[in-house]
Amino acid sequence: MTTFIRPALVDHVVLVTGAGSGFGRACALDLAAAGATTVLLGRKTHALEETYDAILAAGGPQPSIIPFDLARADETGFERISEGIATQLGRLDGIVHAAAQFRTLMPMAQQDMDTWHTLLRVNLMAPALLTRACDPLLQAAPAATVVFVSDSHGAHPAAFWGAYGVAKAGLIALAQSWDDEWSHRDTHRVHAVVPGPMRTPIRLKSHSAGDMLGAGFELPEPQALAPEVTALFARTEDERPHVLVTLQSEPPRFLTD
Amino acid sequence: MTTFIRPALVDHVVLVTGAGSGFGRACALDLAAAGATTVLLGRKTHALEETYDAILAAGGPQPSIIPFDLARADETGFERISEGIATQLGRLDGIVHAAAQFRTLMPMAQQDMDTWHTLLRVNLMAPALLTRACDPLLQAAPAATVVFVSDSHGAHPAAFWGAYGVAKAGLIALAQSWDDEWSHRDTHRVHAVVPGPMRTPIRLKSHSAGDMLGAGFELPEPQALAPEVTALFARTEDERPHVLVTLQSEPPRFLTD
Repeated sequence: MTTFIRPALVDHVVLVTGAGSGFGRACALDLAAAGATTVLLGRKTHALEETYDAILAAGGPQPSIIPFDLARADETGFERISEGIATQLGRLDGIVHAAAQFRTLMPMAQQDMDTWHTLLRVNLMAPALLTRACDPLLQAAPAATVVFVSDSHGAHPAAFWGAYGVAKAGLIALAQSWDDEWSHRDTHRVHAVVPGPMRTPIRLKSHSAGDMLGAGFELPEPQALAPEVTALFARTEDERPHVLVTLQSEPPRFLTD
Repeated sequence: MTTFIRPALVDHVVLVTGAGSGFGRACALDLAAAGATTVLLGRKTHALEETYDAILAAGGPQPSIIPFDLARADETGFERISEGIATQLGRLDGIVHAAAQFRTLMPMAQQDMDTWHTLLRVNLMAPALLTRACDPLLQAAPAATVVFVSDSHGAHPAAFWGAYGVAKAGLIALAQSWDDEWSHRDTHRVHAVVPGPMRTPIRLKSHSAGDMLGAGFELPEPQALAPEVTALFARTEDERPHVLVTLQSEPPRFLTD
């Protein structure tokens, strides 16, 4: 098997949530290809194992797997993740918060309390509390990057995106606040990344199959966009970069893009 | 007693949350001065009674009082409010969501799960779910205006504003999404209002007394800004106005403004 590991992140440890599918999986594979040891967190063990196998097959560093349900986590759960990383890997250089939950497009007036609770918890509170639990490890790292994966409907809220869009907008504010708190450390940075439309499981829920297939518009695969997240970990620029990073400059083609 | 009621909102019914103090109280008084029948919702009965008395003393229409704790409300609670307004007043022409909870400025890494739960619930979920419960009444009104009161730290997230700032940013996204869903009805509008620094109880928690007192910078009283909210209910413009309404164009004078 041919392997090609870019050396930039060798010895770095990066936690990736939602690592079993979609953009999280693509980011984990790309970070591993850059040499990072990845900690794969997700709800479904078999999906995490597929990412694990793909990383090893590409010659990447052996990942760790943490099966974990962000919708049910309490404070102790988040702390155990941080303690486990400290004990087994001894360091943490960053987090990619790619885990997300989306239900279906519906009017605001139909979003009930359970929907609000779950979507705010998974998409907004869990990233905040997991970062909080890992804060001592991140503070101790020589450099740290935390990436909150938002959504174009968080950056530009629109009809029918409901609590999901609101949570993703909150995630951008969360990143901006946190980065402001870290602004005295040149080595520590926080980003909100807006990938734009791509071929992921969430896209299947929000758009028709015809939209997925094209109609003159080829959706990018998440692995085509993941290197831009890896680049946020392997940066060399002097100035503090923008917190909000938009990966596709193309304007949306459809009402719900 | 001299009374002066501006006639624009006579017979209109407007629900105001956080009506016992600060900006909510100022909005209730100003809406009543414009002729609206106000429904005063808040946590402390005695504070609501003071607003009630002030409205009657100014010759305003008799308000209703709903003592209600947004931090503990379930779906049934929100529905009972809507049913009560329907039964007793027969209509609802709008809501001013001025209730807010703020604790203290602190780093993101110190915001625990209880803080996130409470601040998201009061500042973001409750306004969404209360509007949802009132949606049938609002849809039936000849015109409706819903105002979510945000915060300059929601519009411009900054260090140490934590879950409060994130919730207030989410509230702006919530208003944008909801207004987009109502865009086919010229008569129905949603706004996120950013009052800017003013002399309120929340300001006392986030800023030093010296800041409150001035040092060459006079903080406006909430009653000086409330007429701009009333104007959103009594508008005559043809074009759909901006969702986000900023009441003070002055740039912030202090780090935490």
